[in-house]
Amino acid sequence: MNVAILGVGTVGAEVANILIKNQKLITARSGKEIKPIIGVVRNLNKPRNTTIPLTDDIQSVINRDDIDVYVELMGGVNEPYRVVSEILKRGKAVVTANKALLAYHRFKLQNLACDTPFGFEASVAGGIPIIKVLREGLSANHILSINGIMNGTSNYILTSMMNGGVKFEDALKKAQELGYAEADPTFDIGGFDTAHKLLILASIAYGVHGNPEDILIEGIERITKEDIFFANDFEYVIKLLAIAKRVSDKIELRVHPALVPKDKMIAKVDGVMNAVSVIGDAVGETMFYGPGAGGSATASAVISDLIDIAREIKFPMLGYKAPLEIMQAELLEQDKIRTKYYFRLKVEDKVGVLAKITNLMSENNLSIDSFLQKPNIKKEDDATLFFTTHTSLEADVKRVMGILKEQEFVKDEPFMMRIES
Amino acid sequence: MNVAILGVGTVGAEVANILIKNQKLITARSGKEIKPIIGVVRNLNKPRNTTIPLTDDIQSVINRDDIDVYVELMGGVNEPYRVVSEILKRGKAVVTANKALLAYHRFKLQNLACDTPFGFEASVAGGIPIIKVLREGLSANHILSINGIMNGTSNYILTSMMNGGVKFEDALKKAQELGYAEADPTFDIGGFDTAHKLLILASIAYGVHGNPEDILIEGIERITKEDIFFANDFEYVIKLLAIAKRVSDKIELRVHPALVPKDKMIAKVDGVMNAVSVIGDAVGETMFYGPGAGGSATASAVISDLIDIAREIKFPMLGYKAPLEIMQAELLEQDKIRTKYYFRLKVEDKVGVLAKITNLMSENNLSIDSFLQKPNIKKEDDATLFFTTHTSLEADVKRVMGILKEQEFVKDEPFMMRIES
Repeated sequence: MNVAILGVGTVGAEVANILIKNQKLITARSGKEIKPIIGVVRNLNKPRNTTIPLTDDIQSVINRDDIDVYVELMGGVNEPYRVVSEILKRGKAVVTANKALLAYHRFKLQNLACDTPFGFEASVAGGIPIIKVLREGLSANHILSINGIMNGTSNYILTSMMNGGVKFEDALKKAQELGYAEADPTFDIGGFDTAHKLLILASIAYGVHGNPEDILIEGIERITKEDIFFANDFEYVIKLLAIAKRVSDKIELRVHPALVPKDKMIAKVDGVMNAVSVIGDAVGETMFYGPGAGGSATASAVISDLIDIAREIKFPMLGYKAPLEIMQAELLEQDKIRTKYYFRLKVEDKVGVLAKITNLMSENNLSIDSFLQKPNIKKEDDATLFFTTHTSLEADVKRVMGILKEQEFVKDEPFMMRIES
Repeated sequence: MNVAILGVGTVGAEVANILIKNQKLITARSGKEIKPIIGVVRNLNKPRNTTIPLTDDIQSVINRDDIDVYVELMGGVNEPYRVVSEILKRGKAVVTANKALLAYHRFKLQNLACDTPFGFEASVAGGIPIIKVLREGLSANHILSINGIMNGTSNYILTSMMNGGVKFEDALKKAQELGYAEADPTFDIGGFDTAHKLLILASIAYGVHGNPEDILIEGIERITKEDIFFANDFEYVIKLLAIAKRVSDKIELRVHPALVPKDKMIAKVDGVMNAVSVIGDAVGETMFYGPGAGGSATASAVISDLIDIAREIKFPMLGYKAPLEIMQAELLEQDKIRTKYYFRLKVEDKVGVLAKITNLMSENNLSIDSFLQKPNIKKEDDATLFFTTHTSLEADVKRVMGILKEQEFVKDEPFMMRIES
């Protein structure tokens, strides 16, 4: 089975190298010799960490008749979509690690790939075979919820803040030094990377349509040492979570930092590691843990798809054979989300302020569950208040946040996080 | 697709009920309606928790032409092997949750099932799709090691002892009251159940042959509050582990209670939950967590196999297509195991005893890593010593245990546990 690798960066080079290094084992498991015969790169002068032949002429590779599977590792959305579409139309199999491609075009690709294998295990959570888990392992289940830690950069930063007492800015800087964070980290710490992955998982679990723009996405940039203090004190950790769940006939999808009780299994996932907790109506609670990024771990997932293709196994791409009408679940409107909330509020430390806040909360249907005010030992003019609510409606919380922002006694921008228990 | 269920106990009833309850979803995912049309039971008078038709005539069901898949949930080894063999010879697909059947007959079944689907996801770790993970998800990897907590009964007892300060006998009694342990708990707490599961995983990871009798199996019966005290003090937890790893050209398999550093992911798996940590040469460290038993979780795994069959997906049963010669890995002799060890020793509290012990250790190539003697505040005649070794050879440890037992200054049977870090 001849393979072309489109994009020979860290992952592409590892795919080629592991196919060569583990060739004997992979042949025994798949029944075929899987050979990386050509790689496509933009810049032929850049040194590459592999020995396979390279070209910069992608069209010539697409046109070759001796290639059985194309591994798409180009990055981006539009160009890969054009390339992959052309390959599928030529009846050739595709394996990709491109989460953005799937987040935007998965249903169009499903139509194109109806008779052709299309693997994308590597697009979510790196080396964790979570696509297979949802599509095959838990296929008997109505999925009640998915809770994922799917961005190693953010989890590394949050773990440093929780365990090392490090400030956000310093933790980010350290992550950049270690190569865990990009020079522009927005895509990771802003939650967008996680949102792409969540949409892919939710389309398998629920047949959900929609683009990243359609879902609630908040990043971890505004978390301070004070939030960490509160979390520690109240037996929580803070995690950037991807959440999917069914709420009557609609699907709730959201990505945001959340307070998670320390004794939850997913709260124990530290550093750059990823994990996805899935609750199914038959199986109960499960969790799948592993490295979410890195050349070798991602290559492990890419090659598992290649082995499936060599074994002549063809899964329904997004997990449904027929009727595809079941794949029409609608997204819940963001205002209708219901969960528990945490507020951090810097206010003037004077009589009557607390009464004003608690009145505002109760007038807007928010019922306080816990409250913390640190003693003002530095005798500052301001005090920081922390409080959490019972289960409330997102629309009410958003309204209260807007009103608080306008109050004279509120200093700084109020901060809110959701609590997932 | 018509299904017969051979054995309609807790799991069998749940398989039928979930197939009926989740029928619309399962049909969409599999492309076929999967119908449980008959159940076989030994005693027709016993009430069953399902509405499917029942018979006590298994041969009549085996002979039927309208059944596409047989779900074997009979229990035992010989009778299921006879029944399953006959069904496979008739060219009909089989799904089983029977770990003992696989532990003893997996390679013979692989030969019989060469052209026929044979699913056994439910035989290991209940609802966790660990068979699929090893056979498909991590198929690109040389498996460096497997560490599993695969017996909920034992993990419940050990968790009660660690977190609740409960004695072994009381924890077992509580487990029996809650239905987590059988009246005769030997199979679970003695490590035999775990050993069956380990052999199944190791045959996929390494192509390992052998029966449960061929591997090192120790149970959790001899663990005392003193061991728990030591573990807490030295930042360990105690878990009943199934361990598989490659040691040069051989495969080391063992089942025993082990001291595991508290910060390891698998150390965080508490109560009746199961987890399997797999390290692959490409993927790195992964862990798969979920309920290891229970009717509904096990049925989730059984039905995932049924859905694969309905999707017309056929995996190589034990993960290898060809050449099957790769499936000939030999077991490492038990004496050649190398790991770290923990000793608990009750000795006469008098001058010279410690010197005798340390001399004995060093004469037998055991190098002490840590040592603890609790102050003898009760002024008893005996003292309890705890010590751990650097990495040592099992043969040396066994010899020292034998010599210690014969010493006059040693009271009670010496106790040893392995340390996995």
